[in-house]
Amino acid sequence: MTVTTSTLRPAPAPSDPAMLPTPALVIDGAVARRNIDRLAAYCRAHGIALRPHTKTHKSRFVGNLQLAAGALGLTVAKVGEAEVMAKAGEPVDLLMAYPAVDAARTARLARLAGDGPVSVGLDTAPAAEALSAAAAAAGTTIGVLVDLDVGFGRTGVGSPSMAVDLAMLVDRLPGLRLDGIMCYPGQVKMPPADQGPVLAAIAALLADAIDRFDRAGLARRIVSGGSTPTAYQSHLIPQCTEVRPGTSVYADMNIVRGGFGTLADCAARVVCTVVSDAVPGQVVLDAGSKTLTSDLCGPAPQSGHGHVVEYPEAVIHRLTEEHGQVDVARCATRPRVGERVTVIPNHVCPCVNLQDVVWWHEGDTLTALPVDARGRLS
Amino acid sequence: MTVTTSTLRPAPAPSDPAMLPTPALVIDGAVARRNIDRLAAYCRAHGIALRPHTKTHKSRFVGNLQLAAGALGLTVAKVGEAEVMAKAGEPVDLLMAYPAVDAARTARLARLAGDGPVSVGLDTAPAAEALSAAAAAAGTTIGVLVDLDVGFGRTGVGSPSMAVDLAMLVDRLPGLRLDGIMCYPGQVKMPPADQGPVLAAIAALLADAIDRFDRAGLARRIVSGGSTPTAYQSHLIPQCTEVRPGTSVYADMNIVRGGFGTLADCAARVVCTVVSDAVPGQVVLDAGSKTLTSDLCGPAPQSGHGHVVEYPEAVIHRLTEEHGQVDVARCATRPRVGERVTVIPNHVCPCVNLQDVVWWHEGDTLTALPVDARGRLS
Repeated sequence: MTVTTSTLRPAPAPSDPAMLPTPALVIDGAVARRNIDRLAAYCRAHGIALRPHTKTHKSRFVGNLQLAAGALGLTVAKVGEAEVMAKAGEPVDLLMAYPAVDAARTARLARLAGDGPVSVGLDTAPAAEALSAAAAAAGTTIGVLVDLDVGFGRTGVGSPSMAVDLAMLVDRLPGLRLDGIMCYPGQVKMPPADQGPVLAAIAALLADAIDRFDRAGLARRIVSGGSTPTAYQSHLIPQCTEVRPGTSVYADMNIVRGGFGTLADCAARVVCTVVSDAVPGQVVLDAGSKTLTSDLCGPAPQSGHGHVVEYPEAVIHRLTEEHGQVDVARCATRPRVGERVTVIPNHVCPCVNLQDVVWWHEGDTLTALPVDARGRLS
Repeated sequence: MTVTTSTLRPAPAPSDPAMLPTPALVIDGAVARRNIDRLAAYCRAHGIALRPHTKTHKSRFVGNLQLAAGALGLTVAKVGEAEVMAKAGEPVDLLMAYPAVDAARTARLARLAGDGPVSVGLDTAPAAEALSAAAAAAGTTIGVLVDLDVGFGRTGVGSPSMAVDLAMLVDRLPGLRLDGIMCYPGQVKMPPADQGPVLAAIAALLADAIDRFDRAGLARRIVSGGSTPTAYQSHLIPQCTEVRPGTSVYADMNIVRGGFGTLADCAARVVCTVVSDAVPGQVVLDAGSKTLTSDLCGPAPQSGHGHVVEYPEAVIHRLTEEHGQVDVARCATRPRVGERVTVIPNHVCPCVNLQDVVWWHEGDTLTALPVDARGRLS
C-alpha cells in the first residue's frame, strides 16, 4: 500500500520552506519514510512484530505510513491518543502501554474496545479491577499485558512471581483478556555494541516470567518490549514477540549522541530565524523552550539545547520561553540577523507536541500535517 | 468594569473538578483575580503604568481581566500572540517585547497596527529597517522601544550610547514612531529585600540613557521594564514609566521558592491521578514532561518537578513524557492508586502553553477557558 500526502486534509502551505513563518518544525518525508521502512525490514527479518509508539509523531498520517510498512498495530500512552489513532487505519490494533487508572480513562477505553482491538499494560490490582469494571459495564473486552519492571524503575511489578499473581487476577476478572507481558527497557541507553549483557539479563528475566506463566497455565501470546535505543538489538531478547520503538521515526540529538542513529536519520528539524545579535558573541533564535522544550540531551547534557545544522560549532546555551541564546564565539562565520538556521532538537517527541501542524516536506511539496493527538494528555 | 466567565464561549465542563479527566490544569479564579488586583493596586499607588505580559495565560479572558483592573495595555512576545490579544478588548494597546525580524512577522505586525496601537521592542538596525519597510508598505505606523540590555545578556544593545544610535535610526525611518526605551531585568532573581543594589544600578543605567535621549532630542515617553521577581520593587527604578510582569497572574514554584510569593498565590494547579505504585517507595502520576515541562525550579533545582500540595514531603524526582515518578519514601502516609493529587508546577507559563483549555474554577462553577494563544510561536 502506498500512502501519499494526498490523503491529508487540504491545509494552506507555502510551496517553499523559506516562506514558512518561523519557528517551523519541518519533517523530511523521505527520511521519515526511510526510518519507518528500515525498522519494519529489521523486524520482518527477525520475525518480530512491530507496534510503533505514536507518542513521537501523534499523527494519523504517519501512523498510517507505519501500518502500511507492516506494523501490526500502534502503541499509545494516553486514551486520548488511542481515540485519535483508532482512526489511523481500519481496524487498528491498539496497545495503551500505560496503566488505565481513573474512571474517565477506563470508561473511554472500554467504549473504544467496542470498535476494534484494544489492550492495556498495567501493573496493579486496582488498575485491573477498574478496567474490568469499565469493560463489563460497556460490554466489551480489553486485552491486558502485565507490566514487568526490567530495571527502569518507573512502572511494572517487581518480579516474575508478582507478574504471575497479577496475571491470575486479570485472568479471572470479567471483561479482561490476558494477553501476556509488557516491559520497557528505558534504562538501556549505552551504545548498541555494549548492550549485550543488560539485554541478556532482561531476556533471562522474561524467560523466567514466561516459564512461570506456562506452569500456571496463563496466556502469554504477546511479550512486548523495545525502545528506540534497543530497537536494532531486539533480536537479543528472543522472548519478545513484538517491540514498540517511538522516537526512531523522526530521530533527534538524543539518538545521534547516544550512537543509535546519525544526523542523516534526523527527519524533524526546526527552522528558526536569527532575531538579534546585539549581545557580543551571541545570536538569538526565535525558538525557546516553548518550541524546543527544556529537555537536555541525555547522552551529552553539556551540548546545549539542540544542534544548529549550518553552524555545528554553535551552542544553544540558554533557552527562555521564546528566545534561544546561541553562543557563536567558536564559529568561523556567524549567522546574521534575519538569517534562517535549522535546529535538530534534543528530544523530538515533546517538540512535536508543541505544534498544531508540522510541515511534511517531500519532493517539491510542503504539506501541513496536523499533529492530531497533540495535547491529548488524558 | 466587572468581567465574568459568562463572556466566554460555552464549553462543556463538569460541575465538579473531581470529574475532570486528568491531568487537568485548574485555575483558582479568585486567586488569579486577587493577584491581578494586587499588582494593579501597587502600580496605581506608585504611578507606574501596567502592561502585563500575556505569555503566562495566553487567554483573551484573562487579558480582559487585567485591562479591567487598570492595565493600560498588554505585552506579547510573538506576533501570533499579538493577533490573539488584539481582540482581548477594544482597543488594546499592544507591545511586542520581542524583535520583529523576518518578513512574515513584520508584515503581520504592520497589518495589525492598522487596527490599534502596536509597538515593538528591538535591538538591531536590520530589525528596525525591516519593520519600517513593512509599516511603510502597509501604510501604518508602529511604535518602537529601543531594547537596552541591563545585565541579563539575552537581547538589548550594550550601552546607553548604542541605544541613542539605534534610536536615531528609528527616528528617521518611515513608518516608525520612536516611543522610548525597553529593558528586561531577567537576571534579578534574588529575594526582594536584596534587590536594592542591582535595581539602583539599573536605574542609573536608564537615567544615563534618558539623559542621552534628551540631549539628542529623542522621544522617550515610555520606559518599559519589570518582571515578576521585581514587580513589587518597581518603584526602586523610578525611570520606568511602565512594567510588564507576566507570571504573577498565576504564580508557580519559581515564585514561591524565590521568595516573590506564597503557595496561597499559586492560582494554577495540575490535578493528577496516581496510576501506579508498583515500584517500592514511589508512586507514578499521569503528568510527565508533556504536562509539567522539564523546567526545573530555578531557585531550588533539587526540589524536583513541582510541588505536591497534599504530600509536601513527596519529591517528583523524574519525569518522562507521560509519567511523573514521585519519591514518597519520606511521606507519613502515601497516595493510593487512583487517588488524585494536586501539583503546583515549577514554571507555569510553558505548562499553560501545553493545554488547549484550562479549567477556571470560581465559586461553584468550573469553566473551560480556552488558551487562545497556545502554540502561537511565530
